[in-house]
Amino acid sequence: MMAAFYEGHEKIRVGDCIPVAPGAGQVQIEVSHCGICGTDLHLFHGKMDHRVTFPQVIGHEMSGTITAVGDGVTGWSRGDRVTVRPLDPCGECAACRAGHGHVCMKLKFIGIDAPGAMQGLWTVPAHTLHRLPESLSLEHGALIEPLAVACHDVRMGRVQPGEFAVVLGGGPIGVLVAMVARHAGARVLVSEINPFRIQLAAELGLETVDPRSQDLVELVNRETGGAGADVVFEVSGSAAGADMMTKLPRVRGRIVVVAIFAETPKVDLFRFFWRELQLCGARVYEAEDFERAIAIAASGALPIARLITDTVPLDGLESAFRQMESGGEVMKILVKCQ
Amino acid sequence: MMAAFYEGHEKIRVGDCIPVAPGAGQVQIEVSHCGICGTDLHLFHGKMDHRVTFPQVIGHEMSGTITAVGDGVTGWSRGDRVTVRPLDPCGECAACRAGHGHVCMKLKFIGIDAPGAMQGLWTVPAHTLHRLPESLSLEHGALIEPLAVACHDVRMGRVQPGEFAVVLGGGPIGVLVAMVARHAGARVLVSEINPFRIQLAAELGLETVDPRSQDLVELVNRETGGAGADVVFEVSGSAAGADMMTKLPRVRGRIVVVAIFAETPKVDLFRFFWRELQLCGARVYEAEDFERAIAIAASGALPIARLITDTVPLDGLESAFRQMESGGEVMKILVKCQ
Repeated sequence: MMAAFYEGHEKIRVGDCIPVAPGAGQVQIEVSHCGICGTDLHLFHGKMDHRVTFPQVIGHEMSGTITAVGDGVTGWSRGDRVTVRPLDPCGECAACRAGHGHVCMKLKFIGIDAPGAMQGLWTVPAHTLHRLPESLSLEHGALIEPLAVACHDVRMGRVQPGEFAVVLGGGPIGVLVAMVARHAGARVLVSEINPFRIQLAAELGLETVDPRSQDLVELVNRETGGAGADVVFEVSGSAAGADMMTKLPRVRGRIVVVAIFAETPKVDLFRFFWRELQLCGARVYEAEDFERAIAIAASGALPIARLITDTVPLDGLESAFRQMESGGEVMKILVKCQ
Repeated sequence: MMAAFYEGHEKIRVGDCIPVAPGAGQVQIEVSHCGICGTDLHLFHGKMDHRVTFPQVIGHEMSGTITAVGDGVTGWSRGDRVTVRPLDPCGECAACRAGHGHVCMKLKFIGIDAPGAMQGLWTVPAHTLHRLPESLSLEHGALIEPLAVACHDVRMGRVQPGEFAVVLGGGPIGVLVAMVARHAGARVLVSEINPFRIQLAAELGLETVDPRSQDLVELVNRETGGAGADVVFEVSGSAAGADMMTKLPRVRGRIVVVAIFAETPKVDLFRFFWRELQLCGARVYEAEDFERAIAIAASGALPIARLITDTVPLDGLESAFRQMESGGEVMKILVKCQ
């Protein structure tokens, strides 16, 4: 079988890979599709080399079919269509003991800290599996992982029907957050500067704004009778987003930090005091977020497949990374792993 | 009667003042004591002149006895011992309509936006009154307002028995927050750099640390089995505090921003993401916080009177400000208004 190996700074090699037979508690999956995440791009740029064992198969947004089941695995059989929640918590740290294994203090993220999904056959712990219903294609099943991120973010943001939500950043996660928040009954405004992404979000039926050409604060205040937004999702990871996120919420409004900030921005703590704002960080997902994502995707209520702008073979991975970093007409690229 | 007037940048004049007869819905109070708040010092330094009508009587941490009752006021009589919750919300804005009048978008803070308590007779809306029980002296009654701030902060921090709390900043509010959090059943560590304040906090039975001589992160991790603090109160308003506040909490731990940040600090938003931290701002108080503060003070459970480092007459106000800004051996100074 073939796999895509990350071999160091911006170097991908596609080549033969020896399948790993599933050990106790593991399953082996024939990987169908694997989406490329912003984290994979970050990894490609050499920013996570301290967590990688070279050469490293990467990828974690996948779908596939079980080909073999290891000892002690119950409830799963060869032929089951699955996606993987790629988290391997230690089970022993304070976070795990408190029931927050998804933010385990020694979390292994499968696809970074352990081999990932961009290979023909992938062996993972059975506790990571979620079943894909027949009504969901394997292609769309590869979108479950990012959709679960969005479900987690919206849940952490405690979005209620009738609320006004703003999403800062209209990339794949931002648009999915917006779609899930709207599905939860909120009115949602997506702030984005990339014209292609603005257009795509609009085609998905989302309200959009380019904050460079329109005064976002003024717009949100006008649309909320002067109150401000109920909840703001910061998905841009930019200093501008960190600045904007405190200007938009109403008194006691919520901010959810979804983005991974590479640099420490200035944050208006006075505004938190003045309006008694609330902020929470949201990282990956819990099992219930995967189940929710699968239910939403299987229902067909959200046009999530519209996010797929390209599907490439394994040996198209490097050029896909180049396309992503161009910042152009790209949203979600899938890799076909067979 | 006499009053202390703020007449502009660092200028206080004590002189005659004409009492205001209580109008409809108002009461007139013979003010007994009025504490000096950090906000008063800020005001003295000319930082809030845009909110002041000159010459302005200041002060809002008070106790007194009702001397006259205006038309339509029920439930209050001449001779009643009271303290005032110095908030006058508009009743019409989005925050008021949502039940958050204490963070009204057009809030009048009595003592800044309207005449304050440092005068012999003070006329205020009856809706601001809270009754002081006989078991509480009027001197100690002047501490109810800052104690209510602490009660609000601890409530916003959702402090639970057995939790580990850190208070960054051991001034009057920091120490009161620490005392109330401990009263709520938490173990509390106060981080402070002023030796006098460290000693006073220790005399009050609080655990203290000078973060310049001890590694606070290491200490908190050691004392919590590596988990981190359940809740951190940022009361210092400093860049160092804003930096420290994200290093201390456990996974899903809480941060309460109590301080008024004059400058916008850098905040580690990555840490919020990584540990799914939560932050909320806490401003002033609601009616229930005053009632809780009065109950705590009347119970005698907390040695709040130990915070009073000096009591001065009205014409000692300016020198009291000078003492406060020296940063030396001062905690809470009361002004005797009769």
